[in-house]
Amino acid sequence: MSLEALIRNIQPIDQAARAAGRARQDSLTKPPQSLGRLEELSIQLAGITGQALPKLTHKVILTMAGDHGVAVEGVSAYPQEVTEQMVLNFLRGGAAINVLARHVGARVVVVDMGVAARFEPQAGLVDKKVAPGTQNMARGPAMSREQATRALLAGAEVVEAEIEKGLDILGVGEMGIANTTPSTAIAAVLTGFPVERLAGRGTGVDDAGLERKIGAVERALQVNHPDPIEALDILAKVGGFEIGGMAGAMLAAAANQRPVMVDGFISTAAAMIAVGLAPQARHYLIASHCSQERGHRLMLEWLGLRPLFDLDLRLGEGTGAALGISLAEAACKILGEMATFDEAGVSGKA
Amino acid sequence: MSLEALIRNIQPIDQAARAAGRARQDSLTKPPQSLGRLEELSIQLAGITGQALPKLTHKVILTMAGDHGVAVEGVSAYPQEVTEQMVLNFLRGGAAINVLARHVGARVVVVDMGVAARFEPQAGLVDKKVAPGTQNMARGPAMSREQATRALLAGAEVVEAEIEKGLDILGVGEMGIANTTPSTAIAAVLTGFPVERLAGRGTGVDDAGLERKIGAVERALQVNHPDPIEALDILAKVGGFEIGGMAGAMLAAAANQRPVMVDGFISTAAAMIAVGLAPQARHYLIASHCSQERGHRLMLEWLGLRPLFDLDLRLGEGTGAALGISLAEAACKILGEMATFDEAGVSGKA
Repeated sequence: MSLEALIRNIQPIDQAARAAGRARQDSLTKPPQSLGRLEELSIQLAGITGQALPKLTHKVILTMAGDHGVAVEGVSAYPQEVTEQMVLNFLRGGAAINVLARHVGARVVVVDMGVAARFEPQAGLVDKKVAPGTQNMARGPAMSREQATRALLAGAEVVEAEIEKGLDILGVGEMGIANTTPSTAIAAVLTGFPVERLAGRGTGVDDAGLERKIGAVERALQVNHPDPIEALDILAKVGGFEIGGMAGAMLAAAANQRPVMVDGFISTAAAMIAVGLAPQARHYLIASHCSQERGHRLMLEWLGLRPLFDLDLRLGEGTGAALGISLAEAACKILGEMATFDEAGVSGKA
Repeated sequence: MSLEALIRNIQPIDQAARAAGRARQDSLTKPPQSLGRLEELSIQLAGITGQALPKLTHKVILTMAGDHGVAVEGVSAYPQEVTEQMVLNFLRGGAAINVLARHVGARVVVVDMGVAARFEPQAGLVDKKVAPGTQNMARGPAMSREQATRALLAGAEVVEAEIEKGLDILGVGEMGIANTTPSTAIAAVLTGFPVERLAGRGTGVDDAGLERKIGAVERALQVNHPDPIEALDILAKVGGFEIGGMAGAMLAAAANQRPVMVDGFISTAAAMIAVGLAPQARHYLIASHCSQERGHRLMLEWLGLRPLFDLDLRLGEGTGAALGISLAEAACKILGEMATFDEAGVSGKA
């Protein structure tokens, strides 16, 4: 499928299903709106799925990995080899995302979008490597336009394959040493805010590391001149392979009426690329949490998304998305499993 | 057991287990503190339970029900019979708390602390009825001092029985038409804030209902003069049977090193009574959420508790506590199930 066809397939959300969800909520044995955002979430999920009583049985978290040429600028607290090491940790089930996905009953699918290492073919790892890491965006484009398109379509393909298996809700997270740096660049181009308002400490750089990071992003913007009204240009010049993969995954989920639980800072940068390409995709996105990473709130505001919770997370991998998926499932169960006033013989308002 | 013995049994939390939890968190394959409040929560749970790697397998939510004489003042949007009807709904599994407890793998125990109706003995319902509803606190004390003590001890007995069955974490919620009114009175006595800063719309009263509610609370305070430094006096004069039961349950959990997940506005008023009786109990309490009900934030601040999330809930029953219990379990699984840097062969900071 072409990128144009993918975008064209994203339809407005189903207003009749939304209205049915709202009516059902108001008939359940509780004061109207007393479950607050859980009610809103259930109604949004009705609209997204086109089902008055959606069920989120098959839950998948894509953890997309990629390396970044800009790591050589000293923008991360960890060495680049950690991307590869953490992919192996994901595959063995020892990382935070494995623990949280098990807790919420979701399956983790690890995708190599562009790690600077070779992996043996193995269960649980999907090979969509575009290249072994991006180029250093502080000196030129991170990738070619053709690579950016390939990353987007590869992410979409992963989702299409999961939909074949019955996917009901998608969580989108990532791993990639240095990847808050391209994410900051994407946020700066699209929001127009100065880099120092958006750049945070990522995995925990010190003051000097933060200065280097801000400098690297500013040089990347000067050198590449990404076009703020063309998301594909931004992705190619200052993005990353896993960021492109996540954006493509979001577009494919939206095109198939599947809700997307967005994770943290980097996942949100990918959401901005997806929405830059297809503004109507926004309605299929749910922001799980507000990250401790500086700038995340401004990015969520640009998207018009209100996060469900704020637990000072800043890990990525899909960890916030996993917890958000559990809330989404809870919201749907409220809609589908609670008794109505009539069924339970409970009196209404006096 | 006497109330005095119950209070005396509450020990400081285990600092060695806390330190062991902190050290373990710092060895896991993620940047230090990158799971934010989940890490803090896991460490708090280590300290509460006295176990470096706590497991929260047996999860119980007490939904305590009681009626309130002050309902005759027209302070609620629903008629009093709804308390009884909702108890039956809980027992049939059709209420929001049933759905959310099932979702998080918790068991709901419904306790009749003082409903103005007779129930047939049945599975899932614990009979601890002190009396069929309190007296109207706007005209005199809600209950006698002896009844207040009985309510506290009855709540403690329910928890002791659950501990026999293996309880690992307790969620505490309630049902009782008009019970935001005594909760507001408790909050006003203990925080010293004026009633109109604390009183909210409960199940959804209109402006006139809110005026009646504020008036009823103010009259209750004038008529009864509850002593702000004596929590038992406050509970007796302006409390409720389910509020006393919840406070006693919290004390018993603390005395047995079991964490308590506090629910919303009324559950927090009960926590204030518990902490008024035994200040050291505070460290065993976890605030699940900040309710949409006015005044809740001020009550949490008085307790020194920071809620885990804010989803605009205002239902009670233990619904917020159920979601909070799932986060607590997730936090413990992070601590117990994640690989360390050494185990996973992942490099540390550069």
